[in-house]
Amino acid sequence: MSVLIVDTTALDSIKTPTRENPRLLGGSASHAAVAASFFSPVKLVGGVGEDFPKKYIALYRRHKIDLAGLQTLPGKTFHWSGEYEVNMNNRRTLATELGVFETFNPTLPASYQNVPFVLLANIAPALQSHVLTQVRRPKFVVADTMDLWLNIALPDLLKLLKRVDGFVLNDSEAKQLTKEDNLLTALKKIHKLGPKYVIIKKGEHGAILSSSKGLFISPAYPLPHVVDPTGAGDSFVGGMMGYLSTARGSIDDNLRRAMIYGSVVASFCCEGFGLKFTTRITRPAIEARFKELEKLTSF
Amino acid sequence: MSVLIVDTTALDSIKTPTRENPRLLGGSASHAAVAASFFSPVKLVGGVGEDFPKKYIALYRRHKIDLAGLQTLPGKTFHWSGEYEVNMNNRRTLATELGVFETFNPTLPASYQNVPFVLLANIAPALQSHVLTQVRRPKFVVADTMDLWLNIALPDLLKLLKRVDGFVLNDSEAKQLTKEDNLLTALKKIHKLGPKYVIIKKGEHGAILSSSKGLFISPAYPLPHVVDPTGAGDSFVGGMMGYLSTARGSIDDNLRRAMIYGSVVASFCCEGFGLKFTTRITRPAIEARFKELEKLTSF
Repeated sequence: MSVLIVDTTALDSIKTPTRENPRLLGGSASHAAVAASFFSPVKLVGGVGEDFPKKYIALYRRHKIDLAGLQTLPGKTFHWSGEYEVNMNNRRTLATELGVFETFNPTLPASYQNVPFVLLANIAPALQSHVLTQVRRPKFVVADTMDLWLNIALPDLLKLLKRVDGFVLNDSEAKQLTKEDNLLTALKKIHKLGPKYVIIKKGEHGAILSSSKGLFISPAYPLPHVVDPTGAGDSFVGGMMGYLSTARGSIDDNLRRAMIYGSVVASFCCEGFGLKFTTRITRPAIEARFKELEKLTSF
Repeated sequence: MSVLIVDTTALDSIKTPTRENPRLLGGSASHAAVAASFFSPVKLVGGVGEDFPKKYIALYRRHKIDLAGLQTLPGKTFHWSGEYEVNMNNRRTLATELGVFETFNPTLPASYQNVPFVLLANIAPALQSHVLTQVRRPKFVVADTMDLWLNIALPDLLKLLKRVDGFVLNDSEAKQLTKEDNLLTALKKIHKLGPKYVIIKKGEHGAILSSSKGLFISPAYPLPHVVDPTGAGDSFVGGMMGYLSTARGSIDDNLRRAMIYGSVVASFCCEGFGLKFTTRITRPAIEARFKELEKLTSF
């Protein structure tokens, strides 16, 4: 089954203590879509400006990503630029130019409207809702978010959360949303907002899933050298949804393994700037790292 | 087989955002010894002052801890007082009164000199070496440390590290010791200092083991409410050594499970002030949480 992914398709300028990389292919949707593409067919919803490089369209195509929902609009592509500190855990946004995303309001192509797995990556919650409304009886809907929407669009986000099966956010966002320092208490509060499955991402410390089946502590794949963590969270959720959409059995049967696959793709993402490393990997490399994570965590 | 544990036996005054607890039984040795006592006989090496409450001696005895190596010395018991911030992750020391530990220089009782498992908890490295020298051909020696010794006794610590099998420290200490932000790189550097087994503790994020068998990512038991994390690290290493000393097979065969047992005892430690909760638990409660951690991490 295929996965529908909606979010920003962007150009990212990323500065780390050692290097500067202007106008790489980025945006949550790009990272999530490429990550999911290793497991399942992907239908992308997004908008780019007239300046969007053709080579990036070619890249999507190499990953067999369906681009019927990718619109080219008058104006410039969404552009984010940010800078990482030496420890690579803290980053600050230098500039955000919305470009065509200022007025982006997608209508789904007919071929997208029956997609069973839907990933509403971290665009504005009103836009996430707008896309979700156009999908007919999806099997499993996951929303991601970011601190920006907690600050400026909380009522929209709360409305959306009543309509999704799963919600993915990072630990600082979970604390901000619930005003709780303890993650287990935060998870309980988030369930009350609607989602049956809540996943809190903790970066290099992995992730934690809460569902009616209890908790799952998901490890991160340990890396000796992090080049650029931009998009790791998107790769995680993209890989997870990609695997879920092809696995047999119920969501409950497969979600833990799906998270591990997500962690694996996220680890590859961190090893190169933008999508440079992720686009070079293969399914066997993913399977090898999955098996390694089994060994790294068994006792 | 029994475990020899040397470190401060102290009185701790602990302040958290909600409560204040003066002069509780504390010190690394107390936490580690009680934790180890659930698995194996423990021989304690330490010193207390004339003010040390008899009820705490009774507590040690209830845990069948051998006190032949516990000296009562003229003067006051080591006293630490500290305060935790709201998130319970950051604490600051309000006062440290060394008391009898200023001149503590133990001679091991004859009955202690053949103990196979030795835990040199986080006293001064010179004192750790002094104790280690008195043990005849131990099977497995683990040292813990703290930032204080990295700051004021690094040469002593480096000498000690050449003589121990295992070294346990927390993530900030590992970064301080190696000047490395990446934990995998830090682990490699620490191996070069001597220890075959290196364990980096990451608090609520668990711990990571590095040995010739590779890495092991050890989870922390998730708690909905942390009352007082003082002594959690000592409980972890104490529980680990206690289990190791009774498990059949090689260190390599057992160390992962030993770390999980350590995590379990550490989780109980965090649920009460000082040793209040830890001293109330039973082996079946430990086994139940061990099984729970298996479920929480399997995929």
